[in-house]
Amino acid sequence: MKFLVLHGPNLNLLGKREPAIYGSQTLADINASLEMLSSELGCVLSFFQSNSEGELIDAIQAAAVDCHGILINPAAYTHTSIAIRDALSAVGLPSVEVHLSNIHSRETFRHTSMLAPVAIGQICGFGRDSYLLGLRALFNHVKNK
Amino acid sequence: MKFLVLHGPNLNLLGKREPAIYGSQTLADINASLEMLSSELGCVLSFFQSNSEGELIDAIQAAAVDCHGILINPAAYTHTSIAIRDALSAVGLPSVEVHLSNIHSRETFRHTSMLAPVAIGQICGFGRDSYLLGLRALFNHVKNK
Amino acid sequence: MKFLVLHGPNLNLLGKREPAIYGSQTLADINASLEMLSSELGCVLSFFQSNSEGELIDAIQAAAVDCHGILINPAAYTHTSIAIRDALSAVGLPSVEVHLSNIHSRETFRHTSMLAPVAIGQICGFGRDSYLLGLRALFNHVKNK
Amino acid sequence: MKFLVLHGPNLNLLGKREPAIYGSQTLADINASLEMLSSELGCVLSFFQSNSEGELIDAIQAAAVDCHGILINPAAYTHTSIAIRDALSAVGLPSVEVHLSNIHSRETFRHTSMLAPVAIGQICGFGRDSYLLGLRALFNHVKNK
Amino acid sequence: MKFLVLHGPNLNLLGKREPAIYGSQTLADINASLEMLSSELGCVLSFFQSNSEGELIDAIQAAAVDCHGILINPAAYTHTSIAIRDALSAVGLPSVEVHLSNIHSRETFRHTSMLAPVAIGQICGFGRDSYLLGLRALFNHVKNK
Amino acid sequence: MKFLVLHGPNLNLLGKREPAIYGSQTLADINASLEMLSSELGCVLSFFQSNSEGELIDAIQAAAVDCHGILINPAAYTHTSIAIRDALSAVGLPSVEVHLSNIHSRETFRHTSMLAPVAIGQICGFGRDSYLLGLRALFNHVKNK
Amino acid sequence: MKFLVLHGPNLNLLGKREPAIYGSQTLADINASLEMLSSELGCVLSFFQSNSEGELIDAIQAAAVDCHGILINPAAYTHTSIAIRDALSAVGLPSVEVHLSNIHSRETFRHTSMLAPVAIGQICGFGRDSYLLGLRALFNHVKNK
Amino acid sequence: MKFLVLHGPNLNLLGKREPAIYGSQTLADINASLEMLSSELGCVLSFFQSNSEGELIDAIQAAAVDCHGILINPAAYTHTSIAIRDALSAVGLPSVEVHLSNIHSRETFRHTSMLAPVAIGQICGFGRDSYLLGLRALFNHVKNK
Amino acid sequence: MKFLVLHGPNLNLLGKREPAIYGSQTLADINASLEMLSSELGCVLSFFQSNSEGELIDAIQAAAVDCHGILINPAAYTHTSIAIRDALSAVGLPSVEVHLSNIHSRETFRHTSMLAPVAIGQICGFGRDSYLLGLRALFNHVKNK
Amino acid sequence: MKFLVLHGPNLNLLGKREPAIYGSQTLADINASLEMLSSELGCVLSFFQSNSEGELIDAIQAAAVDCHGILINPAAYTHTSIAIRDALSAVGLPSVEVHLSNIHSRETFRHTSMLAPVAIGQICGFGRDSYLLGLRALFNHVKNK
Amino acid sequence: MKFLVLHGPNLNLLGKREPAIYGSQTLADINASLEMLSSELGCVLSFFQSNSEGELIDAIQAAAVDCHGILINPAAYTHTSIAIRDALSAVGLPSVEVHLSNIHSRETFRHTSMLAPVAIGQICGFGRDSYLLGLRALFNHVKNK
Amino acid sequence: MKFLVLHGPNLNLLGKREPAIYGSQTLADINASLEMLSSELGCVLSFFQSNSEGELIDAIQAAAVDCHGILINPAAYTHTSIAIRDALSAVGLPSVEVHLSNIHSRETFRHTSMLAPVAIGQICGFGRDSYLLGLRALFNHVKNK
Repeated sequence: MKFLVLHGPNLNLLGKREPAIYGSQTLADINASLEMLSSELGCVLSFFQSNSEGELIDAIQAAAVDCHGILINPAAYTHTSIAIRDALSAVGLPSVEVHLSNIHSRETFRHTSMLAPVAIGQICGFGRDSYLLGLRALFNHVKNK
Repeated sequence: MKFLVLHGPNLNLLGKREPAIYGSQTLADINASLEMLSSELGCVLSFFQSNSEGELIDAIQAAAVDCHGILINPAAYTHTSIAIRDALSAVGLPSVEVHLSNIHSRETFRHTSMLAPVAIGQICGFGRDSYLLGLRALFNHVKNK
Repeated sequence: MKFLVLHGPNLNLLGKREPAIYGSQTLADINASLEMLSSELGCVLSFFQSNSEGELIDAIQAAAVDCHGILINPAAYTHTSIAIRDALSAVGLPSVEVHLSNIHSRETFRHTSMLAPVAIGQICGFGRDSYLLGLRALFNHVKNK
Repeated sequence: MKFLVLHGPNLNLLGKREPAIYGSQTLADINASLEMLSSELGCVLSFFQSNSEGELIDAIQAAAVDCHGILINPAAYTHTSIAIRDALSAVGLPSVEVHLSNIHSRETFRHTSMLAPVAIGQICGFGRDSYLLGLRALFNHVKNK
Repeated sequence: MKFLVLHGPNLNLLGKREPAIYGSQTLADINASLEMLSSELGCVLSFFQSNSEGELIDAIQAAAVDCHGILINPAAYTHTSIAIRDALSAVGLPSVEVHLSNIHSRETFRHTSMLAPVAIGQICGFGRDSYLLGLRALFNHVKNK
Repeated sequence: MKFLVLHGPNLNLLGKREPAIYGSQTLADINASLEMLSSELGCVLSFFQSNSEGELIDAIQAAAVDCHGILINPAAYTHTSIAIRDALSAVGLPSVEVHLSNIHSRETFRHTSMLAPVAIGQICGFGRDSYLLGLRALFNHVKNK
Repeated sequence: MKFLVLHGPNLNLLGKREPAIYGSQTLADINASLEMLSSELGCVLSFFQSNSEGELIDAIQAAAVDCHGILINPAAYTHTSIAIRDALSAVGLPSVEVHLSNIHSRETFRHTSMLAPVAIGQICGFGRDSYLLGLRALFNHVKNK
Repeated sequence: MKFLVLHGPNLNLLGKREPAIYGSQTLADINASLEMLSSELGCVLSFFQSNSEGELIDAIQAAAVDCHGILINPAAYTHTSIAIRDALSAVGLPSVEVHLSNIHSRETFRHTSMLAPVAIGQICGFGRDSYLLGLRALFNHVKNK
Repeated sequence: MKFLVLHGPNLNLLGKREPAIYGSQTLADINASLEMLSSELGCVLSFFQSNSEGELIDAIQAAAVDCHGILINPAAYTHTSIAIRDALSAVGLPSVEVHLSNIHSRETFRHTSMLAPVAIGQICGFGRDSYLLGLRALFNHVKNK
Repeated sequence: MKFLVLHGPNLNLLGKREPAIYGSQTLADINASLEMLSSELGCVLSFFQSNSEGELIDAIQAAAVDCHGILINPAAYTHTSIAIRDALSAVGLPSVEVHLSNIHSRETFRHTSMLAPVAIGQICGFGRDSYLLGLRALFNHVKNK
Repeated sequence: MKFLVLHGPNLNLLGKREPAIYGSQTLADINASLEMLSSELGCVLSFFQSNSEGELIDAIQAAAVDCHGILINPAAYTHTSIAIRDALSAVGLPSVEVHLSNIHSRETFRHTSMLAPVAIGQICGFGRDSYLLGLRALFNHVKNK
Repeated sequence: MKFLVLHGPNLNLLGKREPAIYGSQTLADINASLEMLSSELGCVLSFFQSNSEGELIDAIQAAAVDCHGILINPAAYTHTSIAIRDALSAVGLPSVEVHLSNIHSRETFRHTSMLAPVAIGQICGFGRDSYLLGLRALFNHVKNK
């Protein structure tokens, strides 16, 4: 079982970026934690980060070839990208949307997700744990189908 | 470490109620799964379900005495109850909001949560797993404080 | 054939309450008229009034055991209660929503019903007759299923 | 006692038109049922159907001469016609608004009625029964004035 | 110089219709007053009333042949008819919109006019005088062009 | 019979100001035309212009002493001044609101009048004629009371 | 194969009406072009224009008898007519909605179509070509069913 | 003269709850202060607090028997409860709405009160003093009737 | 201790102005009552009324020199004046906003206050008592600081 | 005569992607059909697809060098991209917007096009035919300029 | 070359007023800096501050006599004053709107400017520098005309 | 001191693109002017233009290494890009937002900036001068920190 872990814009800055909101862990730290959990669960992960909406779509399309699901933190594109939503619908892979921060306690424009309606579910507010819980949720979903 | 698991209105009907949306497990099944996970994590749970907004508030207030956190599925009150939100703020316990279904792919009035802004985070869409992931999230949050 | 007649908040004050809007009949008068009509139609009624949203939900859930439909005047909860709506959906009994006054000629916030979309239909504006017509509608619906 | 039964646009297609929404009875069937009930109640009915807003207004104005009330299914004009509303206000006859389908469980633009605020009341969702219940309501209203 | 005086839906009921809002004069009274003023000003009037949006459009189109302007009380169609607006634009005749009542002190949906933006101007609130002032305004406008 | 003619902000610039919208006549020209009409009608006028909302209110209050009505072009304050509206209500004099331009064919924020609901009526779009028609309307209204 | 070509309000003025927006061709010119294309495609056309919403509905209903599709330019009724929408749904014929002008670059109230959701598709902005392309689209759709 | 003092949800936590917003006094402190003032004014008070909307309604209805007015801090129900509003209207007792905090400087959803329109008036922002001023206001109102 | 009592536009008409809404007392009556209460409390008052937004701002700025607080009835400017709000913020004096009438039971545009968020609190609906209660509230607030 | 055919995000998945909505033809099929039609019409086509908004803008800018028009299916960017709109405006080439599906019968956020106001026109709902009709429309437009 | 520098309400308090938002410089400091820059650029300045909307309009009108442009910080009137906007339009002088603070990062009601659409441009967020940059912008604009 | 000058989508077309809105200078002209001013001020500039949101974010992130501030004209992305806003927040460099045209006098969707709340300030409407003033503002801000 293989999953794509997709990180949206500015997540490459994690750890350097506004630690009051996003915590002090880097993206490498998070990926390492995910690797550890994937070993435990018995699945394989590939990782991709991009600041470009188009490249994220390319990656989702490419995942259709050999992945069984997508764990995605769409970051700022969460609230505006119909194109990423359409990509997720088009490839037909189960996806889980995660956010480090609690988007519901931030600016109003961050309360709405264009992607959540086509994902299995959404997890937000738990920092690195959002990713780990998201991987568990995705793994269980695919295993039980 | 002790947590209150709070189930909102109509969740006592789980398993009997619209299985296409909520799955076929009963509330007892979910509670049993949570018990199992709590043993594994090393924490204690108490459970309460009510159809009454007032009783849910009473339960939240009572939890302040001996609980370290609240795992809450506010069901229909998610979208309307300022009173439950105020109760969660008032007792000052960390809380995690969970939903069986993906509220973002249902009617528009279910997309907004009055409670999420005062919770640590929100998990939705994974059926019984929403509760289990929520317990993990709450446990980790309290352990790491 | 048995139906639950459910009266929402403040309807116990009928007759004493703002007669210009709600007429001078008491709730007992209305229940008596309904009893008379039910004899004529050949069905049985049980009655319940509560000011508590939670108790109304409890009553709807209990009706699932031995009733074939629900005649409900949700009063003020009409416009706000997602929880009662979910209860009606969950028990799967046919329901008819009735109002004494014409809600469409009153304040704007009374024009919308959270419950009507899950009921068979809605009747408003005819005072006691709203209930009697509602019982006929419910009886015919169940009989013809 | 005489009433005008007014059918709005496209209701002449009843039975042929989207039976999943409107049922399989024709307008003639409904008129026949109404005739039967009017005999029972002891009143006289006249019928008129038109696809034209102007002709419906003409009919309402003409009813002022010899009718005691109007039973109206304004169909699509329900949601847009201020002119029919003004006609009902102007002639000063009591009117009852009926709908075959439950307008509250359909598209949002069908949830609002421009006419309901000037009618005695509104009945929707019961197919042919909406008309029959509406006639009873209108008859009782006029009788009790 | 010739003008068409156009009366919208339900204005044929004037005098009989809600005198508290529209006064006790009939449409014939108003037309007679307008005739008197037109003699004084030195212009000719033709009159048309209809409850049908389509017939009002037909009349506007016909006016293009031999009229120099249109005095229109669109009544209920004021607030909804894009088609009458397009007719006024299309024939290219100057028009003045008048209302018996002060539309700004009535229901919110009467505050907006779809037609006013394509008219020279709008006069409302003065009963019969709205028409007389409108005729003066139209006459002066055409004379001064 | 005496009337106050009240000109709002920037109307002192008339003739110099954006003639494409407001025409080439000065405020003195308009006042002279009004004087001429008042002689013809047999009434007396006093005039006041101010750019200050407060001074316009002062003038309205002062008019209560010896005037029988107010002809007001509130200009930009039309759309925002609750205080002028309250002044008009408070003094209880009949008032007519006039505008040189057709406010309904300009920017959206000019389509709404805070004052019109407390005036007898509104006239707009006829340049100087708006004032002259407004005086006739006011004169007739007071004469017929 | 036979199609009804339906022209909405004011389209009889084409050529005379605001040529800057609608071009200089008359409705007869457009119908002639359509006739020519229909010969080429091998289908038969009937034409109807009306300024009356009711007559347009009558025509749609009549088309159900012997037509295989409807090519409709609803003009001003595009934006307001639920009744025409219901007629198209009711008769169950495939329809194509066309507009001479680009409705999306005009006033905001012209951007929305009540009819488009029940049509196969919509074509706008190409003058006479909108009709010709619409006929091709309708012909192909029916041929390929 | 007797008044009911009604405290809404979570007010039983006063003193323990978010003192930055609500101050450090307990509900008992506030009731004691009110008792003192009532002695001074010469009236009698009864007190009730509940987290349940239904129980608050029950209390309002019961007050109709022997109270002359209601002093109510509806807390979170202020912004959502049509049912409490209806109860206040129904019993016909004068009521004064009070709030400890300045609801207008908090979250937007706290700016609106469903109850204020049926109360005599509203007082907010003065902590315990809001209650004391409210009692004075209620006492004077009843005394002067 | 000294306070400025500030009366907004049209309040100089009190007693003469719409007594059904504002009561029959004059502004002098209210000021006299306030003087009496201030003697009792042991503080000094200065009074100012103006119809001009600018003069009210001037007065607020001047109060910074020798006052300890401001009691303000902003009347119509309540709902629109950002400038008065900024003045209150700028001088940094505690202020209490009062209204004679219950602004929440009047027109919708009177429900919102631009000033309340920068005041200590708001009191409305008690006629002259609103001022007296407001003075008590302000006095206590300043005394307890 | 040369045209650029521009395909937006996820259109490279055509045929594989949600065939219920978009049909079973691949993008290559559509391009081949367009080639065939372009031969017939006597014009040349170049094709470009990208998932990146920036690359689509680059392509539009490049088209200014040697193309006479643009046939564009902006897919998901239709509803959000001001940047593509600005690119179309900037290069000044005539463009036609096409959509495979009927965007007006899908989710609300797909009803609005940011691009349509700067295109000649829009065609939607006819699957592959939308492109073919769009090419005809563009070709005719350029030929007739 | 001469310019009017216009300061809106409460700007006379600068330096004393909320330094966290507006900085510690007084209006005199700002005017002195502007004087220095005007010498350098070779132009003359006159200054005016008022808390009154009417006086600001008077000053704008007076500037038409001998000024070549207006540098305006409308402060609170930015967001509400149509009258100042009309004055700027009417005198036809180029104007530049400046703000000390970044209005876009403050309360929502400060994000909109009624004046900006009639100014050459807007500068905000740079404290005193906003004025100095504004003067440069205005000087260059007038010089280059 | 070094600054990044960032030009958003379509700005590479400057001079060729809609000169009525954007003027006739090319981007090279603007960059040359900025170079000249930077020499005068004593700072160094680097320039980057892209049509891709992702590349603009990459450039902002790269600037964190060796720049002291960012001068950005986000063009069309101004109104939609949360991702660029997040990038600016994340790198923590001071930024100034500039626009050639006055965005407040163009289409409504151009009035709002997603970026302005995280910038120091915004300058718009002065063509090339917007950039030059922006550089001065940024330079002063960094120098004075």
